[in-house]
Amino acid sequence: MQYYTDTTKSIDLKEVNQLIETAFADHGRGFVQMPPKMYITLPEGDFRTMPAYLPSLSLAGVKIVNVHPGNPARGLPTVMALTIILDIATGAPVAILNATKLTDMRTGAAGAVAAKYLSPKKEIILGLIGTGRQAEAQYRAISQELDVSGIKCWSRNSLHAEKFALAVTEHDARSVPLEKACDCDILVTTTPSRLPVVRSEWVKEGTHINAIGADAPGKQELDPLLLKRGQVFVDDLPQAVHSGEINVPISRGIFTPGEIAGTLGEVVIGMKKRKKADQITIFDSTGLAIQDLAIAAIAMRNGQTIDLPFP
Amino acid sequence: MQYYTDTTKSIDLKEVNQLIETAFADHGRGFVQMPPKMYITLPEGDFRTMPAYLPSLSLAGVKIVNVHPGNPARGLPTVMALTIILDIATGAPVAILNATKLTDMRTGAAGAVAAKYLSPKKEIILGLIGTGRQAEAQYRAISQELDVSGIKCWSRNSLHAEKFALAVTEHDARSVPLEKACDCDILVTTTPSRLPVVRSEWVKEGTHINAIGADAPGKQELDPLLLKRGQVFVDDLPQAVHSGEINVPISRGIFTPGEIAGTLGEVVIGMKKRKKADQITIFDSTGLAIQDLAIAAIAMRNGQTIDLPFP
Repeated sequence: MQYYTDTTKSIDLKEVNQLIETAFADHGRGFVQMPPKMYITLPEGDFRTMPAYLPSLSLAGVKIVNVHPGNPARGLPTVMALTIILDIATGAPVAILNATKLTDMRTGAAGAVAAKYLSPKKEIILGLIGTGRQAEAQYRAISQELDVSGIKCWSRNSLHAEKFALAVTEHDARSVPLEKACDCDILVTTTPSRLPVVRSEWVKEGTHINAIGADAPGKQELDPLLLKRGQVFVDDLPQAVHSGEINVPISRGIFTPGEIAGTLGEVVIGMKKRKKADQITIFDSTGLAIQDLAIAAIAMRNGQTIDLPFP
Repeated sequence: MQYYTDTTKSIDLKEVNQLIETAFADHGRGFVQMPPKMYITLPEGDFRTMPAYLPSLSLAGVKIVNVHPGNPARGLPTVMALTIILDIATGAPVAILNATKLTDMRTGAAGAVAAKYLSPKKEIILGLIGTGRQAEAQYRAISQELDVSGIKCWSRNSLHAEKFALAVTEHDARSVPLEKACDCDILVTTTPSRLPVVRSEWVKEGTHINAIGADAPGKQELDPLLLKRGQVFVDDLPQAVHSGEINVPISRGIFTPGEIAGTLGEVVIGMKKRKKADQITIFDSTGLAIQDLAIAAIAMRNGQTIDLPFP
C-alpha cells in the first residue's frame, strides 16, 4: 500500500478534464456505482464519505472530506481530503492519497466539462463570484476548454478580488462590482452563501452558470428565478436534491426535481443538451466520488509515495 | 497523520469489551451518528464503507472493509480493513489504522457484550458453528465475560474443526457433529452460509445465540423457526433488516421488523432484556462503525506508527 503525498505535481489539467468527462459519460450511461455521499455532523463542521466504483477505469475507492469553516484561524485548510483506492480484483487497499488539492482540481474539471458542453460561445468572458481556491480551479480548468478573453471577478471582500485579479497573469482580469461580474458569458459561483447572491435580472440570456458553492443542505447562491428561467443540469440527481444549489428552492416548494433538465453525464453522452443559444443554462455541482477516482488515477502516476506495510 | 501498523499488539481484550459496551450504550441512548454501511459490489466481492461519530469518546472516522471469498487462493485474507480517524475539532485525518485484525476483535467483543447481558448462565458450554478467525475472536472475547466450561465446535470441513479444537489450550474443546454443537448454552454461528445451517429442534430453551455470519443480503445461518421461538436483538435496526441474519426471512415475509425485541444498545442500558431464563435469545450482529471507532481508540495507544505528511 502506498501513501501519495505530492499528488498535484505535474498534473496536466487538460488530461484531468478528459478523464472527468469520461467519468461523467459513464455516469450518464448508468455504468457506475455511487451511493449519495453521507454527511456526518461534527461540533464545528462536517465530513462527507464518498465511495464509488468506476468499472471503465477499473477504479474503486472512497474519498473522505471535511468542511470546517473555522479552520483557517487555526492555520488549517477549511476542506481537507483523503482518497483510498482499492484493488478491484481483491478489495485490498492499495493507495491512500492526500486529496485536498485534487478535490479543488476535480471540481474545477467538472465545471470545465459543463462549460465545454453547455456554453453557446467558445470565446468567453468569465465572471467569478467568490475568489477563493475553487474560483482559481474553475478558471484554470475552463481555460483549457474555452478561449477566455477576460475575467471579471467579485468577492464579498474586495481586497480578495483585487488580489485574485492581480495574480492572474495570462488573461485580463479585473475586480468589479457584483452586478458587473454577472454580465458575462460563463458565470461561476463559489461562495459558501446561504442566501442568494446573484439576482436573476443581472444575468443575460445565453449565459452559462456553474453553481459550485452550494454543497450542503441550506446553502444557495442563485436567485431561484434563475432556475425557473434557465435549464438546470445537475451532476447527480439525489445529491443535488439533497445538498446542491436546488436544495433550498426544492425544500421551499419553489422548484421541483421534475424541472431538472438532466445530468451532466447525459449531456456528455448527447442524451440531453441546451435547447437554444439565447437561454440560461445552469450546472449544479455537488461533487461526485467518481470525479475523485478519476483524478486519483492521474495523481497516482505522478505523486511521491511512502510505502506502508499492509495487510 | 500517523499510519498504525501493528494495531493488535498487547491489546487487553477485557478493555475492548468494555469500550465496545460503552459504544453500544451510546447507540442505545441515540447519542451516535452512524448511517447504515454502504455496499459497493466489485467483480469478485464487495466493499463496505462505514462512517460514524461517537461523541462520548470524541471519535469520528470511517472504516473501509472488503469481503472477497476468493482471496485466500491468492494468499490474501478474505476480509481486509482500514480505519481512518478524523480530529473532531478540525475534521483533519489524524490516523489510518490497519484494521483487519481489529475487525475480528471488535466483532468478537460485540458477541461478548451480547453474551454477558443475554445469557441466563454465567458458566457456559460454548457451541461454535464455523471455526475460522471469527470463531476464535468470539471465543476469546466471550471467555473474558463468562466462565467457559467447555467448547463444542463444528465446521463443514471437519479437519478445520479438529485443528481449532487442538489449538484451544485453556479450555476443553472438541470437534463434534453439527447437531451436538448446537446443544450448548451459548451458540455462535460464524459461517458465510446462504442456507440455514442450525435447525430449530437442535437448540434447547435458554440458549443464547450470537448470529455473526450473515452480514450481506442473501446470507443466513439459522432456521427461521428459531427467530420465531426466541427474542431477536439486533446491533442496528436498518443494517440488520438490510443484511443481518433476519434479512432473508424478512424479504420472504417469514419475519417482520416489528418482531425484533430491541437493540443490543437498549439491552446494555437496561431498556430491554431477556424475558425469561428458559427461552432462546438471538443477537443478530452486522457490525457497527462505532465498534470500529471504539477499538481504534485502544489500538492507537499500542500500535507502531509511520508518520505521514498531511496536509
